[in-house]
Amino acid sequence: MATSVKEVEAAVADVLPSNLEIARHTPRRPIGEIAAAMGLDQDYVEPYGHDVAKIDLTAMHALADRPRGKYVVVSAITPTPLGEGKTTTSIGLAQGFHHIARSAAVALRQPSMGPTLGIKGGAAGGGYSQVIPMERINLHLTGDIHAVSSAHNLLSAMIDNHLHHRRGVDLDPQQISWKRTMDINDRALRNIVTGLGSSADGFTRQSSFEITAASEVMAILALAHSLSDLRARLGRIVVGYTRSHQPVTAEDIGAAGAMTALLKDALKPNLLQTLEHTPALMHAGPFGNIAHGNSSIVADRIALRTSDYLITEAGFGADMGAERFFNIKCRASGMVPDAAVLVATVRGLKFHSGRFRVVPGRPLPEEMTAENPDDVYAGADNLRKQIDNIRAHGIAPVVAINVFPTDYASEHEAIRDVAEQAGARVALCTHVRDGGAGAAELAEAVAAAAEEPNRFEYLYPDDMHLDDKIKRIATRIYGAGGVEFSAEARRQIDSYQYQGYGDLPVCIAKTHLSLSADAGKQGAPTGWVLPVREVRLSAGAGFVYALCGEMRTMPGLGTDPAAAHIDIDENEQIVGLF
Amino acid sequence: MATSVKEVEAAVADVLPSNLEIARHTPRRPIGEIAAAMGLDQDYVEPYGHDVAKIDLTAMHALADRPRGKYVVVSAITPTPLGEGKTTTSIGLAQGFHHIARSAAVALRQPSMGPTLGIKGGAAGGGYSQVIPMERINLHLTGDIHAVSSAHNLLSAMIDNHLHHRRGVDLDPQQISWKRTMDINDRALRNIVTGLGSSADGFTRQSSFEITAASEVMAILALAHSLSDLRARLGRIVVGYTRSHQPVTAEDIGAAGAMTALLKDALKPNLLQTLEHTPALMHAGPFGNIAHGNSSIVADRIALRTSDYLITEAGFGADMGAERFFNIKCRASGMVPDAAVLVATVRGLKFHSGRFRVVPGRPLPEEMTAENPDDVYAGADNLRKQIDNIRAHGIAPVVAINVFPTDYASEHEAIRDVAEQAGARVALCTHVRDGGAGAAELAEAVAAAAEEPNRFEYLYPDDMHLDDKIKRIATRIYGAGGVEFSAEARRQIDSYQYQGYGDLPVCIAKTHLSLSADAGKQGAPTGWVLPVREVRLSAGAGFVYALCGEMRTMPGLGTDPAAAHIDIDENEQIVGLF
Repeated sequence: MATSVKEVEAAVADVLPSNLEIARHTPRRPIGEIAAAMGLDQDYVEPYGHDVAKIDLTAMHALADRPRGKYVVVSAITPTPLGEGKTTTSIGLAQGFHHIARSAAVALRQPSMGPTLGIKGGAAGGGYSQVIPMERINLHLTGDIHAVSSAHNLLSAMIDNHLHHRRGVDLDPQQISWKRTMDINDRALRNIVTGLGSSADGFTRQSSFEITAASEVMAILALAHSLSDLRARLGRIVVGYTRSHQPVTAEDIGAAGAMTALLKDALKPNLLQTLEHTPALMHAGPFGNIAHGNSSIVADRIALRTSDYLITEAGFGADMGAERFFNIKCRASGMVPDAAVLVATVRGLKFHSGRFRVVPGRPLPEEMTAENPDDVYAGADNLRKQIDNIRAHGIAPVVAINVFPTDYASEHEAIRDVAEQAGARVALCTHVRDGGAGAAELAEAVAAAAEEPNRFEYLYPDDMHLDDKIKRIATRIYGAGGVEFSAEARRQIDSYQYQGYGDLPVCIAKTHLSLSADAGKQGAPTGWVLPVREVRLSAGAGFVYALCGEMRTMPGLGTDPAAAHIDIDENEQIVGLF
Repeated sequence: MATSVKEVEAAVADVLPSNLEIARHTPRRPIGEIAAAMGLDQDYVEPYGHDVAKIDLTAMHALADRPRGKYVVVSAITPTPLGEGKTTTSIGLAQGFHHIARSAAVALRQPSMGPTLGIKGGAAGGGYSQVIPMERINLHLTGDIHAVSSAHNLLSAMIDNHLHHRRGVDLDPQQISWKRTMDINDRALRNIVTGLGSSADGFTRQSSFEITAASEVMAILALAHSLSDLRARLGRIVVGYTRSHQPVTAEDIGAAGAMTALLKDALKPNLLQTLEHTPALMHAGPFGNIAHGNSSIVADRIALRTSDYLITEAGFGADMGAERFFNIKCRASGMVPDAAVLVATVRGLKFHSGRFRVVPGRPLPEEMTAENPDDVYAGADNLRKQIDNIRAHGIAPVVAINVFPTDYASEHEAIRDVAEQAGARVALCTHVRDGGAGAAELAEAVAAAAEEPNRFEYLYPDDMHLDDKIKRIATRIYGAGGVEFSAEARRQIDSYQYQGYGDLPVCIAKTHLSLSADAGKQGAPTGWVLPVREVRLSAGAGFVYALCGEMRTMPGLGTDPAAAHIDIDENEQIVGLF
């Protein structure tokens, strides 16, 4: 039995070819045609190869007078370790709108390359709901992630250069929080000592690499709404403290201008196409735990003026990605969402019954694929809670039942029943098997939801105290009974408040596999306490993040990494990447 | 007084605008027009933005029946620390051919980004002999250097992963020679300890980062003649040894296929244009000391079939870049050069008189700019020797006198006199001030030289013993009296011979500021002994390199790095980069 969401989805029908076969056998349109269909003048379109383009940011001004499309975020129930198909649903839905005679674009995060080389499988959708070309998406695309790494590591080098030459601000070597970064899964770089050798070889200190998706620069790229805003955010990055505990910024180090120059092209969103030749923007890829896990604001700003609907995916379940979409991304952009999709699956709700154990890389338990709507009902609290989490922001939720070949109609009915009881719209989706046609029903439902009166509101105001913001998210969204701050977390919150960072929104880094902070707890646990171990500052990105449990920011490679199976064949085509 | 070659050249006439002003005020042609003028079908041209394109490698086959142009390498006398203008001369000459009704392309190395952020000044030529757009050239261009970093670091991560999981070959942790890489000047990464932390955080060992230009992967990118050749070379990289001293390759680690996939687009040469809209290929940038310092074979292969002349620059003086061009690059490609240009300057030859001290960042000594042809004659041995070094390979040399505003006609005459006495053609060049028109005389001279009967020969045969190859280069090209091998170097040579690497050519890493191994010795020193401290293997690139003195492969930033002055202005233009 197939074990990853992509494999399972690709097997929706026995006759379904592999993702790669489908993608390679779909003729691509020149990317200029895709842009032209969006009404983008070719002056704003910079081709990067035949199939990918960057959109110049001046397009934002040129498009400002166009009518604004509806803004739709795609989220999900709390996923199983295999994922529930948010990306395919986002792509399928965007394709689906074209089947009901509306135009739609999809905006996604760019996948990190490191993990692609670690765990088999790309991140470009699946079946007949894919973005192409997948080779470009899963490898360098237009180099944005590399530009982020360069900007990040330039700052790192300038910090150590500062210590080496003993100039300028009195940066305390023991209070430097800025690390180095690389888009490769390399566990040996998690804990390192740098600056060994002679006195000409730098200042000796302990340091670390994190994967580029975890870099604050990546979060900044996603949240900047213009080049000058990018410049300002980069300048605000706090890299450490002076001996007298004053924040030292990238501006103080003199790096922010050059970092902006390095990111000038990276800030332009990447335009690709779906298998049905609808526009797909893939831009920025911040982590979904220590960062907000949403694609870029500039991509959304541009795409919203080119289509009737913009579908944007938010990472993980609605408690994580959607909450940050509302409270971090929309707060930063000032943009107002019109509807939210919650992807739900039969296997996901069965998982939330707590009756099964799902392990990545292993087959699903056999009992899980037997017809059993009761198991679905038993896990339905998670869906109810995530519907409620969308409603908490005044937005109308639409439940998308992502159909798997192992499902039964009675089980779909169970999901529909729960969702309708909770007052949500519902639609069955077979977009993996059928492409956009399989998401036309969903598109209709989303269109109806987006017409409801907009009551969008943030979960908390800017001026709420940081610890109250954390409590608000924990209790209102996660269903926690309370929050327990470590002594260090308390001290950090106090100091951020004192330093003037109290107005920032918060991002809570907890497991994405449970509404609670314990990955082992399915459903919608209540009465538990969120343990906040540490609170950190992303002053440039513009949020404070609370660490609840261990968050690994540099993955490792497995015993048999995907990279060992990637090669080129005799036709010079890449094999083994997907 | 201006102190860098670019500043001096830009000041050739008082009225000459800055490089940046000239570049920004020259209208660019769409890159597709440049390609079309080369006779490249648009199917082979992948635009990367409006001004840059990659050329698909299938163009090599499509062009195979076209007549082959003349292959011209541009080298120089032993340079002062300020450089003598090889890049401007290469660009000017290519532009110059169009002024005598011949077509010509120029092929250059892509500049490393790290140093651009460290020391002010780009690497796209100067005055009216530039390649544009300089912002792209000096920052990411099309991402090739980042792809090299990714491929390199994937191999690094897979090596440490191998140690961590204790699988496969018996790699000895103490005999790993493969480092990590980054295109940033970061001295703190020269000597590091990786794999600290818990047992889940990898194997603890001492390691290092080098700048990406120093990566063997970069040398491989430059020397591969097809994607399958790239694949084979990557597989042959020796990363270390087993406990029983058997070489362990990237193939053994299982990384070569994925590295190739990561480099698939990077192997396509980048097409840009000169200020006069002639084609400029900028591709691969291997170091000029521990690697061969020449741009890519694939760029040359393609460009040679599209133009009457291909001008390619080889790093440093003729003893370094040109020698490796002949014996490493041409040996790898099987291509035969037709002529060689030696750039000479008045100040360069005065420097070789040994009467002056030239320090980068400080003004030239005042006495050096007074009219004094005797000083030029006093340094002429260096020019004679470098002419001889070209002749040693059976190629006709053309001396290009790169005119500076501080020169006198009598001094130019002195250079002309020396060069003609040595049987070389000579031409005065004012390409920095006048563009291609200022290199038309040089183009005529090169055209004549290229018509001479071709007597090209390698300096040594493949099957010569490695130590004899080193001796041959040292005595025949550098003018050394002999070579002294350290005990370690002897042991290494013996082991490479034994392991079957004895057929490889050699690259000698010595100072580029003297024909000798002592940067303080000007002119053409004789009777000295080349001290070979260590010999290393680049089995994938396909050469062995001998270290004579300390070769730094990771630069540092200065007290006031260029990056601190780079920014974007209110028009969102990059400032301070040049």
